[in-house]
Amino acid sequence: MATYEVPMELHAYNRKKLLTSLRNHLESVKRPLFGFVLLQGGEEQYRYCTDTSDLFRQESYFAYLFGVKEPGFFGALEINTSLAYLFIPRLPEEYEIWSGERHPPSYFKELYKVDKVLYVDEMKDFLNEHGRVSSDSVLYLLHGLNTDSGNYSKPAHFEGIDNFKTDLDTLHPILTECRVIKSHYELDLLRYVNKVSSAAHIEVMRAARPGLKEYQLESLFLHHTQTHGGCRYASYTCICATGKNSSTLHYGHAAAPNDRINGTFSRDQRLVYQGVLDAQKAVMAAIKPGVSWIDMHKLAESRILHALVKAKILKGSIEVMLEKRLGAIFMPHGLGHFLGLDTHDPGGYLKGAQRPKEPGLNSLRTSRILEEGMVITVEPGCYFIDILIDQALKDPGIASFIVHEEIERFRGFGGIRLEDDVVITADGCENLTKCPREIRDVEAVMSGEPWPLV
Amino acid sequence: MATYEVPMELHAYNRKKLLTSLRNHLESVKRPLFGFVLLQGGEEQYRYCTDTSDLFRQESYFAYLFGVKEPGFFGALEINTSLAYLFIPRLPEEYEIWSGERHPPSYFKELYKVDKVLYVDEMKDFLNEHGRVSSDSVLYLLHGLNTDSGNYSKPAHFEGIDNFKTDLDTLHPILTECRVIKSHYELDLLRYVNKVSSAAHIEVMRAARPGLKEYQLESLFLHHTQTHGGCRYASYTCICATGKNSSTLHYGHAAAPNDRINGTFSRDQRLVYQGVLDAQKAVMAAIKPGVSWIDMHKLAESRILHALVKAKILKGSIEVMLEKRLGAIFMPHGLGHFLGLDTHDPGGYLKGAQRPKEPGLNSLRTSRILEEGMVITVEPGCYFIDILIDQALKDPGIASFIVHEEIERFRGFGGIRLEDDVVITADGCENLTKCPREIRDVEAVMSGEPWPLV
Repeated sequence: MATYEVPMELHAYNRKKLLTSLRNHLESVKRPLFGFVLLQGGEEQYRYCTDTSDLFRQESYFAYLFGVKEPGFFGALEINTSLAYLFIPRLPEEYEIWSGERHPPSYFKELYKVDKVLYVDEMKDFLNEHGRVSSDSVLYLLHGLNTDSGNYSKPAHFEGIDNFKTDLDTLHPILTECRVIKSHYELDLLRYVNKVSSAAHIEVMRAARPGLKEYQLESLFLHHTQTHGGCRYASYTCICATGKNSSTLHYGHAAAPNDRINGTFSRDQRLVYQGVLDAQKAVMAAIKPGVSWIDMHKLAESRILHALVKAKILKGSIEVMLEKRLGAIFMPHGLGHFLGLDTHDPGGYLKGAQRPKEPGLNSLRTSRILEEGMVITVEPGCYFIDILIDQALKDPGIASFIVHEEIERFRGFGGIRLEDDVVITADGCENLTKCPREIRDVEAVMSGEPWPLV
Repeated sequence: MATYEVPMELHAYNRKKLLTSLRNHLESVKRPLFGFVLLQGGEEQYRYCTDTSDLFRQESYFAYLFGVKEPGFFGALEINTSLAYLFIPRLPEEYEIWSGERHPPSYFKELYKVDKVLYVDEMKDFLNEHGRVSSDSVLYLLHGLNTDSGNYSKPAHFEGIDNFKTDLDTLHPILTECRVIKSHYELDLLRYVNKVSSAAHIEVMRAARPGLKEYQLESLFLHHTQTHGGCRYASYTCICATGKNSSTLHYGHAAAPNDRINGTFSRDQRLVYQGVLDAQKAVMAAIKPGVSWIDMHKLAESRILHALVKAKILKGSIEVMLEKRLGAIFMPHGLGHFLGLDTHDPGGYLKGAQRPKEPGLNSLRTSRILEEGMVITVEPGCYFIDILIDQALKDPGIASFIVHEEIERFRGFGGIRLEDDVVITADGCENLTKCPREIRDVEAVMSGEPWPLV
């Protein structure tokens, strides 16, 4: 498989898109079109007090606009001229001994295709000088809430910034919204990484057998994506859970480290799996611009509840179950999330948007109406989580829908989640994920049969 | 290969060792034997403003004493009773849905073999109550310089600590010194991880061939250590450098990402490699308790200079070259460093110790006299680094030792480093690393011949 080189046009396009949006906004509120968008790139992180640094990963907003791989940069866009500037750290001579060639500004100008590159220590004077063009000149800095983490992005900071007019409110929502709708450059890249990770999933499915450890499958997955796809970074810590562990949604963290594995579906597994698959297929068939993500979540829930009734775990009216939010017992997470530079890509809740309050829906990472160019995961799941079953059985209004002896049999069953990544198109969606999903395909691939894509 | 389970006795032994050292110290300065050693474990780290957390890795001093794998803990040792306490975070109910079972204190008491486990929110009251045993009671906190990074360890902090008597100076040097001399438990573990990584190196040697990318070898190395050794963490970002890249000592970081590979030695490679190997063998033969690490560095330098004279790159008296520090042009880094929980394990420079000032020697991560039980890397190297060659040629006192036309031929040659990890024994050293080092063995293994250890 040939690896993919991210074209710098992707970032140039993003910068243009941002400047267009920002200018439109400034005009609409009758503010002058002067000043700079100023972002600070990520810094190297060290493990506690030691000199061990983790592999540097650029901050995503900065990566979005500039594609810079090195730590310690700043980047600026001049609003009235559209010129793009990078400011690079002045590295000590010693750097050449330990870390390699120190490249001059001209090298980075060529590499990152920006208009001018200066050193970080020249930035303040540069901004001062260019700021003098107009007394209305403002530095637009990135400051805003990440609605998945509850954390705020860190606005650019340098010594002397107090002498500039700064704006902390305008940039974040506009830049975030730019990231929500993907360009064709971004979609090409997302298609590529989905192809790589789909192939890695198939490798894992083929290798899985009793006696193997979960961490060995995690290792195989990572090895495949790096060695065949050139992907040195995984977007998140691998969730590789078998048996009961699969009911822990974020299994795989340091305290639950992927350490426990069969190749055909049991009857129970078939029933639950088919419900989740039906949910996913129903959602994929319904997705298109104008559709509400909350409605898609409820659609998935209804298919899963239907399967649970068929499996005789639940009884009664599915409509009433939906109303009473029974779906949240079995799928406590949201149906999916925006995907891009970040696993949970930002923009799920626009400023002022309210998160739904009802069980299950309150876990949704977005409640937005779908638009063409959004990339979102469709990942319905059905889990048997002790604490949620216990709570349900204690609630008389809910317990009456549950067949007690049957659900007890499913404790320890674990859970099933199917995630595919889709891009919203003009009249539906394109599925970027190319993994076997039908039961007969899964069993065939796991027994070693070829899969068309590999 | 069966994986290795770290026994909790390792940590109990470390705690006992610390308390013995600390009590001896307190007695020697006539201070009362009351109070607690209090350490704060590591916290989960998130990527910038996002909810993506890196795989949690415990802070090393805390891991040394308690072996705790989870974030958010505190640990205490009571000086007068030797009792060990852990304080665990009180997790929200939601944790069971996303991250797995919430274990009670009794679970962690059993798992980590300590005397008592309480919740972090009970810690202040507990310390208050136990502190009342004596008005001399003090909290000994960890605060001190890491001489490799220049950073300071972070003393435990909780709301209300201002009402306690604290001591920030005593603990760090004593605990650091405990880490310098390894116990038999630690040596068993270090033997195991060396066996795993040696086997992974051999896998990489066998796989290396023209056309393969450096990142593919990195991936193979990591896959091997995880899947066969159960090692989910690598101690540092892989330095996988071929050709000219191998003259960048810390190659492999994000700006130089292991992206470019042959299986037999050229004549030049043979000359340089043999010089580095001779240096390593000479050091290994000379190492024993009482020997100065500075002398070992100079011994390695003399062997490398000897090889460069043999290769006709240098000319003149090796003794004078040593005096004029010519070795530092070709081996600008120190001969090796302490190794343990951290890649650069602490304790290299005791409080008050002066770093040598001469070129090359000033890069040494320790200048100590070797003692039984220390684990140290022996990693001589010889590199052709443009900036250092340029500087040398400009210095008339040095340039006269260099054969100019010959050294020009070596620009772009890259560099060679051989690292083996040894433990100092009563009368010499034990080499924990089991890789082929002799030229004939390297060529044989790379051509697919078996290596005894695999």
